[in-house]
Amino acid sequence: MPNKDTRLTILEKGARIIHKKGYNHTGLQEILDAANVPKGSFYHFFKSKEDFGLNLLDHYAAFFARKAGDLVKTDTPPLQRLKSFFHGFRCFFEDNACELGCPIGNLSQEMGDLNPAFRKKLEEIFQMMVSPVEKLLKEAQERKELPRKMDTREMADFIINSWEGAILRMKVQKNPDALRLFDKMVFDGFLKQPHK
Amino acid sequence: MPNKDTRLTILEKGARIIHKKGYNHTGLQEILDAANVPKGSFYHFFKSKEDFGLNLLDHYAAFFARKAGDLVKTDTPPLQRLKSFFHGFRCFFEDNACELGCPIGNLSQEMGDLNPAFRKKLEEIFQMMVSPVEKLLKEAQERKELPRKMDTREMADFIINSWEGAILRMKVQKNPDALRLFDKMVFDGFLKQPHK
Repeated sequence: MPNKDTRLTILEKGARIIHKKGYNHTGLQEILDAANVPKGSFYHFFKSKEDFGLNLLDHYAAFFARKAGDLVKTDTPPLQRLKSFFHGFRCFFEDNACELGCPIGNLSQEMGDLNPAFRKKLEEIFQMMVSPVEKLLKEAQERKELPRKMDTREMADFIINSWEGAILRMKVQKNPDALRLFDKMVFDGFLKQPHK
Repeated sequence: MPNKDTRLTILEKGARIIHKKGYNHTGLQEILDAANVPKGSFYHFFKSKEDFGLNLLDHYAAFFARKAGDLVKTDTPPLQRLKSFFHGFRCFFEDNACELGCPIGNLSQEMGDLNPAFRKKLEEIFQMMVSPVEKLLKEAQERKELPRKMDTREMADFIINSWEGAILRMKVQKNPDALRLFDKMVFDGFLKQPHK
């Protein structure tokens, strides 16, 4: 009898393959093999491969919600917290030979034009990534560590978009230079303006 | 008898499908149908789908080489030329309902981990995009329109990476906001520092 653990196993094993190979290039059978479940078990939880894909996006959304929660919990100064946040991801990529990239960036690139339901959910997850960044920038503003005139929403959007671009470049450079450059440009550049 | 025009037709028709759907999700038959050529004709020019993909990258490389050539030809001030360069691409995306994205960014995301020959060529094309940007920044530096201490290579890399990130975000937002924000942050921010 399939249970909740089976559902999670299918999601996690499928996530791993799709992270590397993309959604369209991953066959249902590959996911079943990796999760070691029969087809019937898959269809007990998901109506179709598309339904699986959309549930996978919800799974990622929950991950980013947890990450966002962690970001606002500590007493560390906000900009330092933000820097550590990106640093943590950089360590992940360094540990993974600069492969995989961001699953949200990958799927946005792949599915943005092909499936409106994916597209909509992906933009929602982007907003979930932007929102805690904006919150930290606002906190820094209140502490007078950033200029009052800075549009924190715009800056947060730019930071997340540029981060996705840096990850994309990393995938072809196969070294973390682009992520380091992102760190330098954002934290020693944009977020170190004279504070008026 | 297949001729050079046939080869170009196959490349251009294939490029269009792959630009929207990705490389792995595009079947050889689709390319043949779009180019209206028999399989034999395809194999006259390309050893395999992979060989076609690598030739497609060379085709893009030639496109960017022409674009880079255009960038250094005019008398317009360098930073204005750079702004127009990105603006031209933004117009392309606006005319295409914010679909497609950058073919190099798309393929980097899709193939960076899957095929070392693609990966290598893609990074070479990235460098072909960075190089003219660096040249314009240097020119602006010589005209004292940018600070002498600016590392123009790093800035050019960051600009291209962030541009790719902005295009990626555009694909899920389905509006040009991220491209406009890129323009504002780069040209009214980074490239408008006090010039020491």
